[in-house]
Amino acid sequence: MTETERSAERFSPRVRALPSTIPFVGPEALERRLGRPFKARLGANESVFGPSPKAVSAMADAAALSWAYGDAEQLDLRQAISQKLGLTPDHIVAGEGIDGLLRDLVQAAMEPGDMAVTSLGAYPTFNYHVTAHGGALDFVPYGEDFRQDWPALVARAKVVRPKILYLTNPDNPTGSWHDAKAVEAVLRDVPEETLIVLDEAYADFAPAEALPETTRLAPNLLRFRTFSKAYGMAGVRVGFVFGEPDAIAQFGKVRNHFGLSRMAQAGALAALSDDDHLRKTVEKVAAGRKALAELARAKGLVPLASGTNFVAIDLGRDGTYARAVLDAVLRRGVFIRMPGAAPLDRMIRVSVGTPADIALFAEALDGALEEVNADQPHLPTGNAS
Amino acid sequence: MTETERSAERFSPRVRALPSTIPFVGPEALERRLGRPFKARLGANESVFGPSPKAVSAMADAAALSWAYGDAEQLDLRQAISQKLGLTPDHIVAGEGIDGLLRDLVQAAMEPGDMAVTSLGAYPTFNYHVTAHGGALDFVPYGEDFRQDWPALVARAKVVRPKILYLTNPDNPTGSWHDAKAVEAVLRDVPEETLIVLDEAYADFAPAEALPETTRLAPNLLRFRTFSKAYGMAGVRVGFVFGEPDAIAQFGKVRNHFGLSRMAQAGALAALSDDDHLRKTVEKVAAGRKALAELARAKGLVPLASGTNFVAIDLGRDGTYARAVLDAVLRRGVFIRMPGAAPLDRMIRVSVGTPADIALFAEALDGALEEVNADQPHLPTGNAS
Repeated sequence: MTETERSAERFSPRVRALPSTIPFVGPEALERRLGRPFKARLGANESVFGPSPKAVSAMADAAALSWAYGDAEQLDLRQAISQKLGLTPDHIVAGEGIDGLLRDLVQAAMEPGDMAVTSLGAYPTFNYHVTAHGGALDFVPYGEDFRQDWPALVARAKVVRPKILYLTNPDNPTGSWHDAKAVEAVLRDVPEETLIVLDEAYADFAPAEALPETTRLAPNLLRFRTFSKAYGMAGVRVGFVFGEPDAIAQFGKVRNHFGLSRMAQAGALAALSDDDHLRKTVEKVAAGRKALAELARAKGLVPLASGTNFVAIDLGRDGTYARAVLDAVLRRGVFIRMPGAAPLDRMIRVSVGTPADIALFAEALDGALEEVNADQPHLPTGNAS
Repeated sequence: MTETERSAERFSPRVRALPSTIPFVGPEALERRLGRPFKARLGANESVFGPSPKAVSAMADAAALSWAYGDAEQLDLRQAISQKLGLTPDHIVAGEGIDGLLRDLVQAAMEPGDMAVTSLGAYPTFNYHVTAHGGALDFVPYGEDFRQDWPALVARAKVVRPKILYLTNPDNPTGSWHDAKAVEAVLRDVPEETLIVLDEAYADFAPAEALPETTRLAPNLLRFRTFSKAYGMAGVRVGFVFGEPDAIAQFGKVRNHFGLSRMAQAGALAALSDDDHLRKTVEKVAAGRKALAELARAKGLVPLASGTNFVAIDLGRDGTYARAVLDAVLRRGVFIRMPGAAPLDRMIRVSVGTPADIALFAEALDGALEEVNADQPHLPTGNAS
């Protein structure tokens, strides 16, 4: 056996063959490439309004106690979450962000060759975990209205009968949402052996009409939420899933039991006790969304309605054009992102920041549009195909 | 299809069939069962001497900045680690503790049905992750000297040709160690397509003879270390792997890229800058080991030599007896653990604590031995079979 052959035998041949690209290049990595720090960080849908001071204080206190592993059963946190939701702790499992929990789910649900159905251009980290576990993905395009096409996803699930159907509500990267009735239609029509992931990362920002009651569960429904967005704790890594106890129990067979740090548990628990901070953050985000939308309209661009903490802005041309504008904004020191797949890739996606952040973005966008429109005056307008 | 059949189709049938038991029941869970908090926490090989004050301070500072995701490339931390080790950042990947990194490795290396070889009674969390990924385990018993039987493990690896061979040095749960020459023999004799996990969680406490140079790498060698033990940061969840870049790169294809929290990265980085705290902790642990060993001898028990922050104490009878003593110690408010498999299950395992902790343990052990010896005077002595 040659070294090349031996090397190929180390690790799974399937994993060896995977690309080294990661779902999201982080802002620190971009800063290193660009050679300077960003002036405004509006690309990862973080909350610049920060965590609750109560959470910050609880985490600082927990730092000194962090010689001890965190509670593997996460009981205090699961109790507090379940009380908020009108459920019991056995309906809840917490984990290292929704990313970590999606990984747990994929590992628990899918064997190599199993199928998952998602929207083309939806959250790439879900796709990443499916692929990294040997699963196969089936994609349904977004609708003409830039929303996930739930009827088409359901129809596809009836044909493919996947292990997992991935839905977001409200949606990233568009900010759009479906209403609770649409969730009911999905629950009625999707094969009962398919697990429905309802990724509600942005639920705290959503119009009330978008969200089924938190007590609306089903044997094949798993609802994912996070402290990364409205609670302003992306860097802490805490998310949770709620669902029926039998489904929740399967996470315990694969998850990293001591993975949720002592600081994360203490911080999330304290954050749940500060409704006032959450309310104020949601208000600031609503104001920021409005400011971003007005700014886009003032430049003749089309902001999408958003039930999240970001605004997708339709630049009205194609992916090449949007990519050029994005790069020009990044070079001007403002971190934003854009969707990767058509028809969404004619947009840029801007997280809500402080008024100062939004002013920096406005200035960078002005310069970027001027530069790109001067360089590429002949780019086609209209949908990318 | 009945609901039972549909339910069986949700999740992987293989994962559904796994037991819900977890590798380690945490001390908080035991406290809830016992109905009161422990007076001393000496069961999880945590460091009661705590993190470096510099790490505590860095984590407290990072708490307020935790609205932002941590650096997915972990570059500052990987640079600092690689400088300590005389390597470069592409030799390093950090993750959510060794537990999280073992999970990454198993996912990257093993497909359902693949084999891993380990010692019977070695770290159960490795076994857990292998099983949770559909891998099969092959066990080699510990030697008569209560050390992992590396020659037998190597011989077994030659027959089984596993994807992974799991070795610990120094060892948990015995505290024993092999020397660097033994590591060389393993590297020479194990099939080159087998990945050798060298779990060095306790390296900072080990005699110098136990450790190959940190620059001693090989294409099939992965060395695991952690901030959970000597750095006193178990509750923070940071570990790292060092190895050749091609092997390290495979982790990036499966890991949760943003999984290492902002506080964890800041804390680990600061901890690395405080050699003084590390040295003092190692000194306190050496003194505590001595105290635990003397205490055991004074009661006619046999402490094993330890290169770690715990001491395994041979009670000289069988697993039933040791379990009874363990339970009696727990009921007296002192958290300790014991190995689960013969011949190690005639021992209890006690982490080093403060002198006050050790005094509490001494008192609890006295009472426990008195109680159990009175209840069970006719238990056999000698090795459990």
